[in-house]
Amino acid sequence: MSTQTGGRVRRQSHGPGSLLDVAVGEFLTRGYDATSMEDLSRAAGITKSSFYHHFSGKEALLRAALERALDGLFAVLDSDGARTGTPLERLHHIVRGQVAVLVAELPYVTVLLRVRGNTESERWAMERRREFDAHIAALVREAVEAGELRKEVDPALAARLLSGLVNSVVEWARPDRDPHALPDAVARAAFEGILPARG
Amino acid sequence: MSTQTGGRVRRQSHGPGSLLDVAVGEFLTRGYDATSMEDLSRAAGITKSSFYHHFSGKEALLRAALERALDGLFAVLDSDGARTGTPLERLHHIVRGQVAVLVAELPYVTVLLRVRGNTESERWAMERRREFDAHIAALVREAVEAGELRKEVDPALAARLLSGLVNSVVEWARPDRDPHALPDAVARAAFEGILPARG
Repeated sequence: MSTQTGGRVRRQSHGPGSLLDVAVGEFLTRGYDATSMEDLSRAAGITKSSFYHHFSGKEALLRAALERALDGLFAVLDSDGARTGTPLERLHHIVRGQVAVLVAELPYVTVLLRVRGNTESERWAMERRREFDAHIAALVREAVEAGELRKEVDPALAARLLSGLVNSVVEWARPDRDPHALPDAVARAAFEGILPARG
Repeated sequence: MSTQTGGRVRRQSHGPGSLLDVAVGEFLTRGYDATSMEDLSRAAGITKSSFYHHFSGKEALLRAALERALDGLFAVLDSDGARTGTPLERLHHIVRGQVAVLVAELPYVTVLLRVRGNTESERWAMERRREFDAHIAALVREAVEAGELRKEVDPALAARLLSGLVNSVVEWARPDRDPHALPDAVARAAFEGILPARG
């Protein structure tokens, strides 16, 4: 096999940030388990030893990618709108913020959502995702208890469905499309229905 | 490595149906690409040649698994409730039926949803999924045009979000839980909101 891969060969010098971009792209195309450091250095157009200068190996790259996605998502929970207001107002803010992060960090969040727990970093990331989801589930419960949501809402089920709805956006979102319209549209779908009957 | 894998070794004789169950279980645990016919015959507790007696190879098993999932889903579109009534009534029926199939055929549908198009069978399955989704998108459009859904519903976006919501159920559904409550709960979430405000 040739090391030429047509238009995908890159010859410019890379810092750690753009190497991470390249690695995430390869993880998404080939699957993490099937990607070798050989593949990564070929895709980046640098030698394996230059690559090892920045990252100790494949798992370090995965870890950095997962951290970037999780940092973005947890920053939403730390933002003002997620910490003030009624439970329902916070949920609105978080859902919009979560979708904005999904779109802004699309390949990183996609890697995060495909994690199945085969390595230590993956298990760590799954644990962090569970923390995030538990935060949302607690807020849904508060909103029900505060009488802001219909009484028949089952908080655990609602939190799961909300997570499923929001995360499904990575399957088709494109960062070049209007990044403002999508967070509002997903929030509206979550709170008023994807298919709301004409009232 | 020993060929013993503790409680997972099975020694009884297998027909093609239960071999397919075993294969799907391995695909989900190891990932399709990482699973060998060696792994599959070991998991089934039979020789490789007995396995080849039933299936010509790994891709034939994948194809059979994908067909089972897709046959289940397309049967929903062919059912009476999906072909009679208003567009909104049909959508209600289809969403409930889709969730019921997801739960009843959970491992098979999970394999289907993880397909990324690396083999001919995977590309075939993705094409069939697109057909299914196009059918739903057309019905959403009809429901908007018939005035059954709010005018501001964007049919293409709504169809994508609906597909994301429904399919996310495979991440946590358990077939032993009440298989009747879940289809209704997901349908309610889709039509009235996951987090409906107290009216």
